[in-house]
Amino acid sequence: MTVNSRPGHDDSAERPGRPVVLGQNQYGKAENRVVKITRDGATHHIKDLSVSVSLSGDMDEVHLSGSNANVLPTDTTKNTVYAFAKEHGIASAEQFGIHLARHFVTSQEPIHRARIRIEEYAWERIEPSGHAHPDGAAAPEHSFVRKGQETRLTQITFDGTSWEVISGLKDLVVLNSTDSEFWGYVKDKYTTLPEAYDRILATEVSARWRFNWSDDEGEMPDWDLSYEQTRRHLLQAFAETYSLSLQQTLYEMGARIIERRDEIDEIRFSLPNKHHFLVDLAPFGLKNDNEVYYAADRPYGLIEATVLREGAEARIPADLTNL
Amino acid sequence: MTVNSRPGHDDSAERPGRPVVLGQNQYGKAENRVVKITRDGATHHIKDLSVSVSLSGDMDEVHLSGSNANVLPTDTTKNTVYAFAKEHGIASAEQFGIHLARHFVTSQEPIHRARIRIEEYAWERIEPSGHAHPDGAAAPEHSFVRKGQETRLTQITFDGTSWEVISGLKDLVVLNSTDSEFWGYVKDKYTTLPEAYDRILATEVSARWRFNWSDDEGEMPDWDLSYEQTRRHLLQAFAETYSLSLQQTLYEMGARIIERRDEIDEIRFSLPNKHHFLVDLAPFGLKNDNEVYYAADRPYGLIEATVLREGAEARIPADLTNL
Amino acid sequence: MTVNSRPGHDDSAERPGRPVVLGQNQYGKAENRVVKITRDGATHHIKDLSVSVSLSGDMDEVHLSGSNANVLPTDTTKNTVYAFAKEHGIASAEQFGIHLARHFVTSQEPIHRARIRIEEYAWERIEPSGHAHPDGAAAPEHSFVRKGQETRLTQITFDGTSWEVISGLKDLVVLNSTDSEFWGYVKDKYTTLPEAYDRILATEVSARWRFNWSDDEGEMPDWDLSYEQTRRHLLQAFAETYSLSLQQTLYEMGARIIERRDEIDEIRFSLPNKHHFLVDLAPFGLKNDNEVYYAADRPYGLIEATVLREGAEARIPADLTNL
Amino acid sequence: MTVNSRPGHDDSAERPGRPVVLGQNQYGKAENRVVKITRDGATHHIKDLSVSVSLSGDMDEVHLSGSNANVLPTDTTKNTVYAFAKEHGIASAEQFGIHLARHFVTSQEPIHRARIRIEEYAWERIEPSGHAHPDGAAAPEHSFVRKGQETRLTQITFDGTSWEVISGLKDLVVLNSTDSEFWGYVKDKYTTLPEAYDRILATEVSARWRFNWSDDEGEMPDWDLSYEQTRRHLLQAFAETYSLSLQQTLYEMGARIIERRDEIDEIRFSLPNKHHFLVDLAPFGLKNDNEVYYAADRPYGLIEATVLREGAEARIPADLTNL
Repeated sequence: MTVNSRPGHDDSAERPGRPVVLGQNQYGKAENRVVKITRDGATHHIKDLSVSVSLSGDMDEVHLSGSNANVLPTDTTKNTVYAFAKEHGIASAEQFGIHLARHFVTSQEPIHRARIRIEEYAWERIEPSGHAHPDGAAAPEHSFVRKGQETRLTQITFDGTSWEVISGLKDLVVLNSTDSEFWGYVKDKYTTLPEAYDRILATEVSARWRFNWSDDEGEMPDWDLSYEQTRRHLLQAFAETYSLSLQQTLYEMGARIIERRDEIDEIRFSLPNKHHFLVDLAPFGLKNDNEVYYAADRPYGLIEATVLREGAEARIPADLTNL
Repeated sequence: MTVNSRPGHDDSAERPGRPVVLGQNQYGKAENRVVKITRDGATHHIKDLSVSVSLSGDMDEVHLSGSNANVLPTDTTKNTVYAFAKEHGIASAEQFGIHLARHFVTSQEPIHRARIRIEEYAWERIEPSGHAHPDGAAAPEHSFVRKGQETRLTQITFDGTSWEVISGLKDLVVLNSTDSEFWGYVKDKYTTLPEAYDRILATEVSARWRFNWSDDEGEMPDWDLSYEQTRRHLLQAFAETYSLSLQQTLYEMGARIIERRDEIDEIRFSLPNKHHFLVDLAPFGLKNDNEVYYAADRPYGLIEATVLREGAEARIPADLTNL
Repeated sequence: MTVNSRPGHDDSAERPGRPVVLGQNQYGKAENRVVKITRDGATHHIKDLSVSVSLSGDMDEVHLSGSNANVLPTDTTKNTVYAFAKEHGIASAEQFGIHLARHFVTSQEPIHRARIRIEEYAWERIEPSGHAHPDGAAAPEHSFVRKGQETRLTQITFDGTSWEVISGLKDLVVLNSTDSEFWGYVKDKYTTLPEAYDRILATEVSARWRFNWSDDEGEMPDWDLSYEQTRRHLLQAFAETYSLSLQQTLYEMGARIIERRDEIDEIRFSLPNKHHFLVDLAPFGLKNDNEVYYAADRPYGLIEATVLREGAEARIPADLTNL
Repeated sequence: MTVNSRPGHDDSAERPGRPVVLGQNQYGKAENRVVKITRDGATHHIKDLSVSVSLSGDMDEVHLSGSNANVLPTDTTKNTVYAFAKEHGIASAEQFGIHLARHFVTSQEPIHRARIRIEEYAWERIEPSGHAHPDGAAAPEHSFVRKGQETRLTQITFDGTSWEVISGLKDLVVLNSTDSEFWGYVKDKYTTLPEAYDRILATEVSARWRFNWSDDEGEMPDWDLSYEQTRRHLLQAFAETYSLSLQQTLYEMGARIIERRDEIDEIRFSLPNKHHFLVDLAPFGLKNDNEVYYAADRPYGLIEATVLREGAEARIPADLTNL
C-alpha cells in the first residue's frame, strides 16, 4: 500500500517501537434525520427517525497509516440510510435498523460489526375542524402535530451471526402527588434531611430494555406492540407502586415488565429524582399542607439499576447513553 | 441618604457632569418553578408553572448610587409567588399573573409597573391498569405524565390602571405532508432553488396573541377555554390551508383566530420553515416520489408576521421572546 | 395575477370583508453558518459566523394570496451570504452585514428594509510544540482552537437611507468574590432575605450597544477595535466597581462605555444575578467564612437596563434577543 | 425489619416466586455545584466544580422492600461535598474526588464502591485597567471571567482497596484549515462522495484518559500538571499531524500522550467530524479556492477509539458519558 506516498508526510519512521496499541474503535455517520411519508390514497403516514451508524472491524491501518482502503465512508453510510428508507420502507425503528446492520456486515468484508442507533419522534394527526372542504370531501389526512413526551429509542447490534436489540425511551416525565415516603435511612454527621411521610415523587424516565431475540431462526417480536405494552406497564407500575424509595419504584417498574413481557430479559433505568420541595410558608403566616412545591433542577438524586429475568445475562451498560 | 457611607467606596465625585442617563430598566426574579397540588379527595389536580417577575418604577437611585431604599428584593418576589399559590390558588396562568401584578403595583409605592411572564407545563393522567387495588378500591388519581408538545405562555402587564394580557405558545411542531407549493418567486443571480409543486411544509409554531380585555371593569375572558380554542383554530388552519407560501399559511392561521375569537385583537407568529429536502436517490437507481426526506436543522427560513383585528393597535414586539 | 389558478384551491371568496389586517412582517434565512479561510502564505486566518437575514417591504400579497412575485427566496439569501464571503471577504462581522443589507435593499425593489444579524465565534491559534517539522521549517499556522467565552454579536439594519448598527456580546460569565453588598432594601410581609455585607457577585453578561454612525457620509468606526475596547471597559468596570446592587454595577459598566467610547450612544444590559449562596456548614460544626458557596441555577434575579448618552434616543428593545 | 409496617401497603405477597433479579445498581446526588473561594490577602483564588456522587454496595433491600436501612440519603452526600470543600479544600478536582470516595467507602459499611464524577469550569483573572484605585493601591485580585473553551472532567472510583482515576475534557473545538485529505476509500453502490485532497479538518474533542496510579502506596501524579501537559500534547498532535483520515489524527493524539505522559496508560476519544463543506460558487460565476465553507451541524461523522500503552488493560467504556 502506498497511501503515504504523497509528498511531505511520512510518519512510518515513528511507528516501529512505539509502545502503543490501538484498542476498541468504531466509526460511522451520526444523527441522520430521515422522514418517510407513505401515501395510502389521501391518508398519509409518517415515520421520523434520527439514525446513527457505527461500524467496526479490520480498521487498524486507517488509524496507523491513514490508509482508507478498508473504510466505507461515513457519507456512504448516510446515503445508505436514505436509500434503505425507499428500498425497505420503515416498518419500525427496530426493523429498519436490522436491515441496515445486516447490510453493512454482509456487504463489506472488513466490517465485522454494525451498531445502529435510532431515535424515533412520534406524531399525531391534527383533528379536522369538520368544515375544511366545502365540497363535502373527507378531511385531508396529511396533517400532523409532533407528540412531544418521550423519545423512542433502539439500538441494533449485529456481528454477522447474532443480534442484540436494546430498545427504550427517554424524556418521559412522570409524577405521583402522593403515596411516596422516605424515612428510616442512615444518619451520619452530615445528615440534615428530615424524614418524609407524604412527598411528591417525580422522575424523568430513561429506560433501555434488551430483547431475548438474537438470531434469524427465532421469531422476531412485534416491535411496535412490544413498545406500546412495555411503555404502558412502565407507567402503570410507576402509578400503582406505593413508594418507600425511588429504588423500590424502579424495581417494581422493571419487575412488572420482566413478568409481563416475555420477549424482554433485561431492563435498566436511570431515574433522576426530580425533587419537589415543600415551600416553607410559615414566615408568611400560611400553612403548606402538601400543596405548594418548589421544583428544583440541580442537584438531583440519581437512581440507576438493572432488573433481569432470572438466569439472564446482564449486558446493558451501566451508563445509559443515546443508547 | 448615606448609602455610600461605608468606608472604601465613594463614587459620587464621578457623577456630576457625567454625560450619561439611565433609560428603561426593570428587575425581578426569573423562572420561579412552582407546582401546586389540589386535592379533591383521592383525585389530585396539578398546576406546574415557571413564573418570572419584572418590576419597574422609581429606580434611579439603585442604579446611580446603589441605594436599595426603593428596591423590593427579587428574593421577596420569589417568596410572593409561592405564597400566592397558597393564598389565591392557580385557577389559570393568566389569573395567577393578574394577582401577582396587581399586588406588586398596589402594595409598593415606588413600583409603577409589573410584568409577569409564565410558562405552563401540561400534564395528563396516567391511565390505570385496572388491577392496581386488589381490594376493589378505585384507581388512584394522583399519577401524571408530562404532556410534552407545546409550552403555554402568558405575559401580564399592569401599570396600576390598565392591563395588557398576551398569551401564546411555543414548541408546537406541525407538518403537512402535501398541499404545499413554492414557485413564482423572484430570481436574481444568486437564485438556484428549483420550484416546488408538492413539498412538505413543517414549522415549530411560536405564537403570541393579545387580548382586548384591559381594565377591571370589563369582563375577563375564560382564559383556559380561550387557550384551548385558539390552539385548535391554529392547528386546524394550518392543516386546512392549501399553501403557496409559509407566509400565506401564517396569515390564514392568524386570520382564523381573529375571526373566531372575539377576545383576541392581535396575534404574532414566528415560524421557522423546518426544511424537509427530498433526497436525491437517482445515483442509487431509485426514484423518490415524495417519499424520503432529509429533515434539516440549519439554516432555516424564518417567517414572522402580525395579524390584527381591523382598527386594533399593534403592540406585540417584533421579536418574540419568552414572551 | 393568477397565482391561485392551480386546481383545487381558491380562497379568494373568503377575503372580502375579513375584519383582519396584516401588520409588521419580515422573512429570510436564519443561522447561515459560514467559515472563511484567508491564506497569507502558510499563515491562515479564519472568520466563523452565523448570519441571519431578515427582509421586509412590499409583502402583502404573499400573505394574502400566496403570490411569491415579490419574494426573493430565503434560499437565495443564503446563497448570497456565501457568495459575498468570496466577493467581499469578511473584514468584520459589521462590515459583512453592511454589504449584505445594502445589497438586498438596493437590488430588489420590493424590499425596503434589511436586517442582518450575525454571531461571531472567536478562534485562537494552537501554540506549536517546536518540534513539528524536523526539516527546520517554521511551524504551520493553520491550526486553531475555538476560544469559548463570549459570542460576539451584531445587527445591521438598513432602510435604503440610514443605518442602524447594534453590536454586543452574550455568554460572558464574570464573578467578583468580594466588594459586593446588598442591604437597606424594602421589607414587606414576604421578605425573608437577610442582608449581605460581603457576597459573591456573578453574572452572565448579555449586552447590546448602538453606534451613532448612521449614514454613508459619516466615517465608519473601526469595528474590531471598538469591540475590543468596549469589551475591555465592560470587564474592568465590573471588576472595579464596589457594588451595593447589581443595578449599580450595570450602570457603571454602561456609563464607562458611554464615557470612553464616542462611537457608542446607547447600551443595554440583561444581567442574570447568578446567585452564589453561602452554604450553612454549622450543622457539621464548621464555620463558613465566605469560602464555600452553592452556585444556583434557577430562579435567578434578572436586572435589565439601558444607559444612554445624554440627548440620545433609546432604540434598543427592552428584550434582548439574538439580537 | 418492619419497614413495610405502615398501613395500606404490603407487597411481600408478591415477592416469592418472582422470576426477577436485581442487577448492577448505584445511587447518589448528581451535579452538586460548589464554588470555593480561597483568600490569600487581597488575592482570591477560585475553584468551580460540579460534583456527582454515585454509591453502590449492599442495596438489595431498598429495591426489594423499600427499606432504607442501608441508604445514606443523597441529600447527605450533597452535604458532604460542601463540608469537604471546607474541611479539605479543593487542591484539584482529582484530589477532591479522592477525599470524597474514600470517605463514603470507609465510613459506611454497606457502601462498597464510590464513584465521584467532577466537571471543572476554569476562570481567568480580569486584567485591571490600571486606574481603579486613585489612592495608588494595587489592583484588586478578586475579579474573574469564565474561560470557556473546554470543560475539565474527572472520575474517581474506589472500592476500598484500589483506585481508578479517569480524567479528561470535553467541548474543546479544534480546526486545521489545511493538511487534511480523504481519499482511497471503499466505494460501493451508495457511494457518491468525491475524494478530497485539501479539506478542513475540525472536531470537538471529547477525551478520557486513565491513570496507572491505583493504590495508596503508589505516588500520586501531580494532577494539575498532568492535565495541562496532556491537553497541550493533544492540541499539538492535532495541529502537527498531516491527516489522511480523522482516525489517523485521533491515533496520533493518543499515541503522543501515551508516549509523553508516563502516568497515563489508556486514552479514549470521541471525535465528531465537524464537516466544513466547500460551497459551490460556480453558479454565481465565482471560484471557491478553499476559501468559503458551510459548517454543517448534522449529520456528522463520529470517530471513536481507544489508544493504550502496550500491555495495559482497556477499561474506559466505549461510550463516553459525562464521564
